[in-house]
Amino acid sequence: MAIWLHEGHTPGYSVNWGVTAILHREITPFQELAIVETTEWGRALVLDGVLQTTEKDEFIYHEMMAHVAMSSHPDPRRVLIVGGGDGGVLREVLKHPRVERVDLVEIDRRVVELCREFLPAIACGFSDARANIVIADGLQYIEDCRDPYDVLIVDSSDPVGPAEGLFGARFYRQAARALKPGGMMVAQAESPTFFPQDFTRVAANMRQTFPIARIYLACVPTYVSGHWAFAIGSTVHDPCAPAATAPPIAGLRYYSPEVHRAAFVLPPYIRALLAAEAGECGEHPLQDGP
Amino acid sequence: MAIWLHEGHTPGYSVNWGVTAILHREITPFQELAIVETTEWGRALVLDGVLQTTEKDEFIYHEMMAHVAMSSHPDPRRVLIVGGGDGGVLREVLKHPRVERVDLVEIDRRVVELCREFLPAIACGFSDARANIVIADGLQYIEDCRDPYDVLIVDSSDPVGPAEGLFGARFYRQAARALKPGGMMVAQAESPTFFPQDFTRVAANMRQTFPIARIYLACVPTYVSGHWAFAIGSTVHDPCAPAATAPPIAGLRYYSPEVHRAAFVLPPYIRALLAAEAGECGEHPLQDGP
Repeated sequence: MAIWLHEGHTPGYSVNWGVTAILHREITPFQELAIVETTEWGRALVLDGVLQTTEKDEFIYHEMMAHVAMSSHPDPRRVLIVGGGDGGVLREVLKHPRVERVDLVEIDRRVVELCREFLPAIACGFSDARANIVIADGLQYIEDCRDPYDVLIVDSSDPVGPAEGLFGARFYRQAARALKPGGMMVAQAESPTFFPQDFTRVAANMRQTFPIARIYLACVPTYVSGHWAFAIGSTVHDPCAPAATAPPIAGLRYYSPEVHRAAFVLPPYIRALLAAEAGECGEHPLQDGP
Repeated sequence: MAIWLHEGHTPGYSVNWGVTAILHREITPFQELAIVETTEWGRALVLDGVLQTTEKDEFIYHEMMAHVAMSSHPDPRRVLIVGGGDGGVLREVLKHPRVERVDLVEIDRRVVELCREFLPAIACGFSDARANIVIADGLQYIEDCRDPYDVLIVDSSDPVGPAEGLFGARFYRQAARALKPGGMMVAQAESPTFFPQDFTRVAANMRQTFPIARIYLACVPTYVSGHWAFAIGSTVHDPCAPAATAPPIAGLRYYSPEVHRAAFVLPPYIRALLAAEAGECGEHPLQDGP
């Protein structure tokens, strides 16, 4: 018997994931949420029909969301995660010994509750004394923010549904105000090949907001096209290499200082996408790789 | 109306490509061959139900198959391509000004004929005076080879059907004999996450055959998981960076000298896969990244 989760991405592309059990399924006030057992990728969190994270490859996205900014910033003590209700980015941020406090602002309480119940290896950071979980709209939270951060990580779902506001220019303006001097912001920036408009939109937001703005890449097998982009903006420090003060973090499976540097090397066709977008705005493109 | 090419990869994963026209379809003596027009990726060559190349992203795989070895070898004059009947790797190899002759050995005449007819932008190298097309079994060709090569590129389909022999230890032993002193060999090595056994098998073949053996990676959106590996073996020169003599090649869209170096930086989990395989054989693993 074959039971498939059919994941539509574009009018001409979809993916089927073998599912052996539906562990939970509900409609929250924000989205359709499911936890499924997949045939080959372990348990997975599914939001509005799209796989967000699987036990087998979650480490790639979460390590690359967290450690690039955390290792580039010379002294990251206060961190804000917007979204990230599965806890994976939180778990990675907490591996940095300098971190004193992490505020995680998730709009959907049920994501946090169900990931704690069904994906405990991903959600383990929620019980750390340095973690403070806020159930709120990230856009509103950042407008009200009075106590700025060293690092801001935007771990959103795709720019439809509850995450849409996190892709807008207004959010980026407020985010820059929520950073300390020397602060950095990182956001997932979608697939450059499948969603080039979303990708260049995030890149443009970062470029128009920060004096230093860069793109880096990772391969996440369970995300559409595998090729996943991250945008990083910085007020002072260039994030393209780890800071001299970056502590070694044991046990990582995708991130390393060498992977950090290599991730900023963009193939010419992706640099061309970014240059075309900047040209349309009459602006200079993002900084190239190191 | 939606018409889908359903591409099965593993018992728990398959992909659907929207198809707007079936331009050609036949059973050759070796495989089922089709040329389809996809909704979003242009025309595609499909062998035994698996997309081999699409007009929109073929440049990534073909550039990375050709230019890493061609740029690392200090003087690549004679090149052998085994497989590669679509002509994409041939087209890229011919961009190197030092190349005097390229022999391309494809087992299935119909692949060459139909790609010339339906995918002329990929197959354009077939009409180059330096290109010599041989319709033959690559394994037999290399056993009979008396005139050795500087660079050997194995552009095979997956290790089922006609390409199976190209993944065996015997082929590698013969391939090493078909190289000049200073020669290099490169082979596509599948997806490390979806097909780790195929991946480590190619890596082991390369490691057991050449004094220098390395893995490099690229992101090919239309191949399963996006994350694609290439294995490279070398008799003398380390291929992890372009040679000082490498000529600049204009117009490339994925390869650059910086991408060349970055592609050899392996995430720790892929290094661990390789180390585990080598450990089972009681041998040292491949060289790490640069």
